[in-house]
Amino acid sequence: MPSYTAPTKDIQFILHDLLKVTESETPGYADLEADFTAAIFEEAGKLTSEVLTPLNAVGDKEGCKLENGIVYTPKGFKEAFGQVKEGGWTGLDMPEQYGGQNMPVVIGSAVGELFSSSNQAFTMYQGLTHGAASAILAHGTDAQKDTYLPNMVSCEWTGTMNLTEPHCGTDLGLMRTKAVPQDDGSYKITGQKIFISAGEHDMADNIIHLVLAKIEGGPEGIAGVSLFIVPKFMVNEDGSLGERNGVSVGSIEEKMGIHGNSTCVMNYDDATGFLLGQEHKGMRAMFTMMNEARLGVGMQGLSQAEVAYQNALEYAKDRLQGRAVTGAEHPDKPADPLIVHPDIRRSLMDQKSFAEGARAFILWGATMIDASHRNGDEAAEGLVSLLTPVIKGFLTDVGYDMTVKAQQVYGGHGYIEEWGMSQFTRDARIAMIYEGANGVQALDLVGRKLAQDGGKHVMAFFDLVKGFIKENAGQDDAFDVDFLEPLKAASKDLQSAGMYFMQNGAKNPNNALAGSNDFMHMFGHVCLGLMWAKMGLAAKAALAGGASDTAFYETKLATGRYYMARQLPATTLHLKRIESGADTVMALEAANF
Amino acid sequence: MPSYTAPTKDIQFILHDLLKVTESETPGYADLEADFTAAIFEEAGKLTSEVLTPLNAVGDKEGCKLENGIVYTPKGFKEAFGQVKEGGWTGLDMPEQYGGQNMPVVIGSAVGELFSSSNQAFTMYQGLTHGAASAILAHGTDAQKDTYLPNMVSCEWTGTMNLTEPHCGTDLGLMRTKAVPQDDGSYKITGQKIFISAGEHDMADNIIHLVLAKIEGGPEGIAGVSLFIVPKFMVNEDGSLGERNGVSVGSIEEKMGIHGNSTCVMNYDDATGFLLGQEHKGMRAMFTMMNEARLGVGMQGLSQAEVAYQNALEYAKDRLQGRAVTGAEHPDKPADPLIVHPDIRRSLMDQKSFAEGARAFILWGATMIDASHRNGDEAAEGLVSLLTPVIKGFLTDVGYDMTVKAQQVYGGHGYIEEWGMSQFTRDARIAMIYEGANGVQALDLVGRKLAQDGGKHVMAFFDLVKGFIKENAGQDDAFDVDFLEPLKAASKDLQSAGMYFMQNGAKNPNNALAGSNDFMHMFGHVCLGLMWAKMGLAAKAALAGGASDTAFYETKLATGRYYMARQLPATTLHLKRIESGADTVMALEAANF
Repeated sequence: MPSYTAPTKDIQFILHDLLKVTESETPGYADLEADFTAAIFEEAGKLTSEVLTPLNAVGDKEGCKLENGIVYTPKGFKEAFGQVKEGGWTGLDMPEQYGGQNMPVVIGSAVGELFSSSNQAFTMYQGLTHGAASAILAHGTDAQKDTYLPNMVSCEWTGTMNLTEPHCGTDLGLMRTKAVPQDDGSYKITGQKIFISAGEHDMADNIIHLVLAKIEGGPEGIAGVSLFIVPKFMVNEDGSLGERNGVSVGSIEEKMGIHGNSTCVMNYDDATGFLLGQEHKGMRAMFTMMNEARLGVGMQGLSQAEVAYQNALEYAKDRLQGRAVTGAEHPDKPADPLIVHPDIRRSLMDQKSFAEGARAFILWGATMIDASHRNGDEAAEGLVSLLTPVIKGFLTDVGYDMTVKAQQVYGGHGYIEEWGMSQFTRDARIAMIYEGANGVQALDLVGRKLAQDGGKHVMAFFDLVKGFIKENAGQDDAFDVDFLEPLKAASKDLQSAGMYFMQNGAKNPNNALAGSNDFMHMFGHVCLGLMWAKMGLAAKAALAGGASDTAFYETKLATGRYYMARQLPATTLHLKRIESGADTVMALEAANF
Repeated sequence: MPSYTAPTKDIQFILHDLLKVTESETPGYADLEADFTAAIFEEAGKLTSEVLTPLNAVGDKEGCKLENGIVYTPKGFKEAFGQVKEGGWTGLDMPEQYGGQNMPVVIGSAVGELFSSSNQAFTMYQGLTHGAASAILAHGTDAQKDTYLPNMVSCEWTGTMNLTEPHCGTDLGLMRTKAVPQDDGSYKITGQKIFISAGEHDMADNIIHLVLAKIEGGPEGIAGVSLFIVPKFMVNEDGSLGERNGVSVGSIEEKMGIHGNSTCVMNYDDATGFLLGQEHKGMRAMFTMMNEARLGVGMQGLSQAEVAYQNALEYAKDRLQGRAVTGAEHPDKPADPLIVHPDIRRSLMDQKSFAEGARAFILWGATMIDASHRNGDEAAEGLVSLLTPVIKGFLTDVGYDMTVKAQQVYGGHGYIEEWGMSQFTRDARIAMIYEGANGVQALDLVGRKLAQDGGKHVMAFFDLVKGFIKENAGQDDAFDVDFLEPLKAASKDLQSAGMYFMQNGAKNPNNALAGSNDFMHMFGHVCLGLMWAKMGLAAKAALAGGASDTAFYETKLATGRYYMARQLPATTLHLKRIESGADTVMALEAANF
């Protein structure tokens, strides 16, 4: 049975040594003293390790069951959800007005990693609720906020997002769900939605569905889509629950993973819905929260990579198999542990350097969301919008690969469900698909974000990297060689790719889009390279400042060196592919495949 | 529900246009006329598409059940196994003397792909039997061959391979299973073996276990391991079945995939065993058939990539979503099919170019096994030994990745078990692990095979590539640029990596082994690059010769160009990683991870 330990020390390093949160001008950041944040992670660590981790395998094995219209969650989920609610974890970064604790997103994200690592399927119930509540917070009327938010912030009621229909997911303009205006200002919603995570379950008194639908007579396609609040039970004026609304679960899907979360087909049959935000502006309302939601999914990629790595590492230390090629390291034992073998090391270092780099990347992204939300910082908003598809697409693609590597460390045992490594892989797989499949992330990055606002955000990113290198070069030869030069080379590759798109995308946009996946990945590598260079610098500063835990900081430097030497050079391959253009990609007629 | 169509035309192209099997000097090859082989694949295609493919999902869903010591295979398996036996498919490349058809391995492998694509879990029952029969064929006494082979060739009896124990898989020197010599020349075998594929089931009258065990008093470690034949039911002198032997199934494992195959814990309790081959030479006996067995597992990587690709392609043609960025291609429909999108193309071309290149690689490998077995060709034996870890490791790693890509084409539906794409991924995952985990393949390649016989096999490989390029360069500028130059560059990268190992591995073997995985992958790319260059040449020749199906051959050329432009350049990244050496890989103390 796998275990999980919150990586508190690593998170603290990022918050305080790297991001120096208390020095930030973002409102609320000054309060994030190291002792305070450590206490949060310690408490969250206990709950996640002791309560949610043991339920992860239970959820996988039992799954959810639909009987007579009721979805039963796995044994123990309901009780654990109670503990999570009692601890106040569901409203961490929600406004105090609605019962939240008003902490910044950077803390919500850091804690979210712990929850997701310990039990991704379980954590999705509150994750979806958080997303739905955020949308109501951003677009609801005061009455809507008062009606729904207090119970959603506390997770007494949970929330869902209803976008996909059987024939359309990415291309929501094809949507068929209809909304018919009623005399009282409400709408009657009719249609079928699929892949609705947490669509129905037994852990909350009410479920608040946010549903995309087309108001009859509105514009064609995506321009005619509106967003509606459709509660499972109608809410009376006094806040008590009224009659059951015309929404029901049709079936629950059997999936590759996240079995503990109920993925539902939801049927809306003249269900009463209330417009959220403006008519026909449903996509805009849904996507206001996109940066945060996609950051959350990118974090799931990290979360599964992290917990899989922790277990692979323990196995590699414990399992005796073979001898070190340089001579037995434990001659007293029948064999050496796996970790002596260079190829096992390579795999573990890939995982470790990814997880720590990804964590820094996500929390940096979260600080930009906070700066944007709390300080109206438009540059931060622009930059995090640019980076969002990278965070989501790159971190979930690579996060998945890392779970596969972790599983491989276990040899045959990795394939046996009892050992739990398969579940990390199967659970991680969904994050590459939902909240915009990764191909769509790459398209968003190359087709939209690069050129947004005249390309100023991508220029800002390059300036940031260039400025960082310039500021820190020439002070330490080894650091220049190990960190700054590889970063410079990778950043140059990324710029060359952007240049290629500019020069060749105009005459044929396929030249840009055929390289979109490679661009997303090379961008991700440059971001992790930047994070590692900054973490390296922070570690050097701590060592120079006489930090007592030298092994911790030296390990950071060594892990960074690994990333720069072994992972970052991937940019050259991605550039080469991009520069080969669209010709070979688009050569075949569809019939000739 | 996924479908499967045997890629007969592609296989025929490889056998006849590329490998020109009828022109080979290998005994039996002259008979492999195109009409004859086409008839084989047509028949195998019918059986696999119509009978085995529909059972693939059944096997996944039902799995195997253990009740009172009996393992029940999924519904329909037993009847289908009957059809496979009746068709004579189980002894295709086995000697006529024992009821086989004496065809070469290249035909057995080509047909094996069809079986494995349609139902990997099912095909393993006969695959394991084939492996066990091959070992008896190579090492058994005449009496042993006469006793076991006729029923194993027909699969009336099936076979197993028993290597792994709970505490040891790769490092079999740690083995604890004991063999105690008896007065009658037999042995009493006692111990526990795990991960025994097809260990117990209801589809055969008898199961012939090949079991590795240590004879009491023999040498320590791997040098004391012997191989034994342990039948489930003793075989009487007249060939009838006698009493039940002391072997029983302890449990069956719940696995990530291949649910239709029973993976058993086998308990041997004073079971009667008969020495196969020489005392203490069990590993040698087990590994005689290694090249063939590992080629078979490499083929599984291809097989799942192929069937997943076929289904992803159909989905990409059918599913309407979004519009081509260069303008609507089907303005009459509500949206264009997925296949218009460059990033979907990229994914499909990755899959297609891999599958076709991998198939050529495997069948080329099979011709070398045939040349070695049938013609005593030592150069072919040496080369295929060198390439075996590449075939197994590279093709299963990349084959798995390709199933993930195919699954991704389906978006959310790829995650739902009903659509079948998850199963391809879950089934493909095992091939990276069994028959020597891929890290062990890389170790075998770099630590053993490179230097074998003074390095003459790897030199022969480089000479082969060099000779091919030299022979064909300068005749067609476009072919030079599209095919030969990339191949030359990649081959040079591979040579540089080999050189790096020679220069740096001596002073510290970790410098070689830290790059072993990258070397295996770059070697794989060079082999597929070589295959594509050769296939390109064969396609050009067919077109020049006035072949009527021009689209087929032009598609081969276009697919080859894609591989050369987009996949082969991966060698530069692998080289860069290799040349970064072991320092960053081995930097950390185990405690500091």
